[in-house]
Order: sequence, then structure tokens, then C-alpha cells
Amino acid sequence: MSGHWRFLRQAVDLAAGNVACGGGPFAAVIVRDGQVIATGCNRVAASLDPTAHAEILAIREACRQLGDFQLRGCTLYSSCEPCPMCLGAVYWARLAEVYFACTRSDAAEAGFDDGFIYAELARPAADRRIAMRHLPLTAAVRPFRAWAEWADRTAY
Amino acid sequence: MSGHWRFLRQAVDLAAGNVACGGGPFAAVIVRDGQVIATGCNRVAASLDPTAHAEILAIREACRQLGDFQLRGCTLYSSCEPCPMCLGAVYWARLAEVYFACTRSDAAEAGFDDGFIYAELARPAADRRIAMRHLPLTAAVRPFRAWAEWADRTAY
Repeated sequence: MSGHWRFLRQAVDLAAGNVACGGGPFAAVIVRDGQVIATGCNRVAASLDPTAHAEILAIREACRQLGDFQLRGCTLYSSCEPCPMCLGAVYWARLAEVYFACTRSDAAEAGFDDGFIYAELARPAADRRIAMRHLPLTAAVRPFRAWAEWADRTAY
Repeated sequence: MSGHWRFLRQAVDLAAGNVACGGGPFAAVIVRDGQVIATGCNRVAASLDPTAHAEILAIREACRQLGDFQLRGCTLYSSCEPCPMCLGAVYWARLAEVYFACTRSDAAEAGFDDGFIYAELARPAADRRIAMRHLPLTAAVRPFRAWAEWADRTAY
């Protein structure tokens, strides 16, 4: 079994085990240079945190391990195709690549909203089920101006 | 100044102030029944956590305050249009509506990747800059089967 299949299988096994621990059926493993540096299991209901998806927790843990807010050169193995929230996190963390076992359709069949959220993000803001409204405050640009003028800023 | 403009202005003011505290130029406020129940300021570089966007932190704090992993009836005010990660979190938290001051184009001009990530999510997985690969493990459905059979599961 090649490395990719082995690490992905580890994520699937963690996901199956997480259900019996009060978690959702999702897990993720982050690997660098052939070594697992972090794992994460879905804890949404268990920790009353809608952002506690497996991939988010694994990314946060990997960053703690490496002392960095970026994970260049790392690979994410997820038991299921990442939802838009987690995919966004993958981009912000600048992971190198992602492998997944189940798809968003499998997740939808199991009762999870991943496919619905992908469809919503593809719609114009005004047509979404959750209303998104742009209010053009005159003060809106102040934070970005302060940022541009802040000499000690860390770009990311 | 109507409530919506006032709460949004509060988010913008928090975002501007956050820069001087070592944070990114973003903040968010969550309101229920006319009361602020949580705020969040970007702490990505400060806490070495790529998921520490203002909206994510505000959502997590609001859930702690309410003791729930859903925020039905709550409104999010964000100094800037939420990125795909945060928009995903908005859906998972089931917020009622979102108001924002700056747009993803303003964020791009200030050097942030929001627009790029929106464009990436709209592409087929195979055409993305971060490779996403589906490996159809035979064990892949085990977690969802365990979930379906788990009597004490909390649907979300």
C-alpha cells in the first residue's frame, strides 16, 4: 500500500473510531516528509463549535507543532472531501496537496450539508439562502489603511 | 444611524484597533436581539493559526456564550466580506444574515487572498493550484456507516 493510501486509510480509521467517542464521522491527518505531524477528528457537537471540523483541528494542531501559520510542503489526508470552510483553510495554510476518500455526495447522503454549501457559494451574494449585504460605510477602508501604515505587520 | 450601520461600524473600529495590537485588519461582531453577544479580531499571525480569522473567532465565542453549535437568529457584522472559509462557517453555524463593509476586491488590493480563493473554489478540483485527489478506498464508507448505526448521534 503506497504512502498516500496508507495515510488516507489512517484518516478513515480515525473517523470511524471518532463516532464511538461522540464525534462526527470525519477525520484528517497532516503529513510532512513521510511523518504524521498532526491529526484531527470532528468535534462539532462534542465541543459545541461549528468550526471544529477534522481538517480545521488538524491544521491548527500542525501549526502548533511547527510554530508557523503556514504548512508549505505538508499534505492533508481527509476521510471526506473538505467542505468549503475547510478548503478555504487549506488555502490559507498553503498546504501542498489534499487527498480524500469520500466525496461531497457521500457526505450529503449521510446527512451533511457540504454539497449545499458549495452550491450556495457559487451563487451571487443576493441569491443566497443566508442574506449577505454590503453596506458601504465611509470608514470601511480605515483598517486597511492602518494595516498599510503599520511597519511591523506580518503579511500572510 | 440604524442598528445595522452601527454594529458594522463597531466591527470596522475593532478592525482598525486590532492592527495596533499585532492583528490583521479584520474584525467581526455577532448580534442577537439587538445585543452584541461576541466579537472577534483577526489573530492569524499573532497566534500562528491560519484559521484565526475574525469571523471564525466571533462564531466560536458566540457559540460558547450561547452553549450551542448553531447561531440561528444571530446576525454577523464583518469589517470585510467573509472569505470562503468564513462563509462556510457562517453556513455551518446557520447564522440568519451577514453585513459587511469592505469587499473581497478591497481585501485583494490590501494584499489578502480572498478573491483568489473564491476563484479557486469555483474550479474543478483537478484544475486547482493546490492539487485535490480522490482516492476511492474501499473502507471509505465505514465512518458514515458507523454514524448511521450510532444511536446517540447529534445531527448537525
